[in-house]
Amino acid sequence: MSTAVGCAARLEVIALPGLPIVAPGDDLAALITAALIHAELVLRDGDVVVVASKLVSRAEGRFVDLGAIEPTPRAHQLATRTGHDPRHVEVILREASDVSRAVPGVLIVRHRLGLVVANAGVDFSNAVPPPALAGSGVGPWALLLPADPDASAARLRAALAPTSAIGVVISDSFGRPFRLGSVGVAIGAAGVPPLWDQRGRRDLFGRELEHTVTALADQIAAAADLVAGQADEGRGAVVVRGLRFAASDGGAAAIMRATDEDVYA
Amino acid sequence: MSTAVGCAARLEVIALPGLPIVAPGDDLAALITAALIHAELVLRDGDVVVVASKLVSRAEGRFVDLGAIEPTPRAHQLATRTGHDPRHVEVILREASDVSRAVPGVLIVRHRLGLVVANAGVDFSNAVPPPALAGSGVGPWALLLPADPDASAARLRAALAPTSAIGVVISDSFGRPFRLGSVGVAIGAAGVPPLWDQRGRRDLFGRELEHTVTALADQIAAAADLVAGQADEGRGAVVVRGLRFAASDGGAAAIMRATDEDVYA
Repeated sequence: MSTAVGCAARLEVIALPGLPIVAPGDDLAALITAALIHAELVLRDGDVVVVASKLVSRAEGRFVDLGAIEPTPRAHQLATRTGHDPRHVEVILREASDVSRAVPGVLIVRHRLGLVVANAGVDFSNAVPPPALAGSGVGPWALLLPADPDASAARLRAALAPTSAIGVVISDSFGRPFRLGSVGVAIGAAGVPPLWDQRGRRDLFGRELEHTVTALADQIAAAADLVAGQADEGRGAVVVRGLRFAASDGGAAAIMRATDEDVYA
Repeated sequence: MSTAVGCAARLEVIALPGLPIVAPGDDLAALITAALIHAELVLRDGDVVVVASKLVSRAEGRFVDLGAIEPTPRAHQLATRTGHDPRHVEVILREASDVSRAVPGVLIVRHRLGLVVANAGVDFSNAVPPPALAGSGVGPWALLLPADPDASAARLRAALAPTSAIGVVISDSFGRPFRLGSVGVAIGAAGVPPLWDQRGRRDLFGRELEHTVTALADQIAAAADLVAGQADEGRGAVVVRGLRFAASDGGAAAIMRATDEDVYA
């Protein structure tokens, strides 16, 4: 956490057009750099580049051939309970450390990354593989979350701006308890503090603040999602400009609440 | 819900400086209009004005004198369980329709507005009353959420821009399960669709989208919170410019998931 985050008076949230469909092995940093040049944007200190997790997953080849999946008895059992395809359930369980809720139509797990998310964040609807992969399996294909999103964010940050103090956030769109609709969240981060610790700051009356820690990286992901538009993979990268923050070593893993500290676990 | 929301390619998120400390009976729309003039901003179609709920609560005089609160036996019981001040618990219970979780240090309720929120969203730390109120009670003072935030948003919208298609969001900063840190959420909305229904939209491969409903008003609140800075009440209003949306009659109440549809209720 950092206490050196400033409140900008004005932010710009800029979608980057022109990204192609990403294929396994693609150099995502090079593709984003080309899109930045196309948009005539030069990254500078304080910029945060928000990249949709699907782009990272595709570049990292996180495709799974559902035609090759053999569900275990436990997957069949949970498939019966939820109404999901047993092969989907099997893929979800392989990504999960624990099942959080399983009821008709709903399978929410704790992903081994620590995220609590429906279907382990696996994309079963949009994961069309590139032609090279499609020829090598039966399909249909699923797309897993990046293997280590914080490491992916750190690599992107180093490649995109080796000499500037930028941040990178890898975002996804999750549902949540109590409230309808999905919101952008940070599943990976580098350079930007994932949590903004305001302890010690005082309000205009000189009293200490009540809510002392803001999920900065999640709010950046939500702001980016406003312009990204999930349907338009060509806008899978967004630049958030105008934040002031001190460079941080923390990743998005710091946002995840430990199970034994969560009253809804 | 609306299907006529466009994805802007560029957003601006602009904090309005110069708002004074709001007192009961103040005309909040007039104060925000003065701040807009000071910032040389003229509201136009598609702008969303995000107002911190504390400003609305103060203008609406939602102060409670804790010195005049007599806790019930149930409040004393929950105070013992949570470690909270019994008078705080009494105020929280009066705002709540149900208790969601009560463990040491944590009291999460379902607010009668439908929000699931710690301490019923009551502010026990910052609620310094204006001098006029302070002379009329014992104190200390608590500040409740606005009585009807959707109605407050609709009134603000009509007063701020009677002839333009703007939106108003009344925001607060809530914690959430599974993830640390608070994020901006919409507790009231007018003019802007609270949920953006993308059903029917297709991705670049022509396949239907998986996550079909985005919590648009919550993401607007999160983006605004990035620039608002909780400690600085002078930035309690933010303009989000660049969204495209069709005018909506829906309020933020539409975001609240019904208890019987919530697997974490």
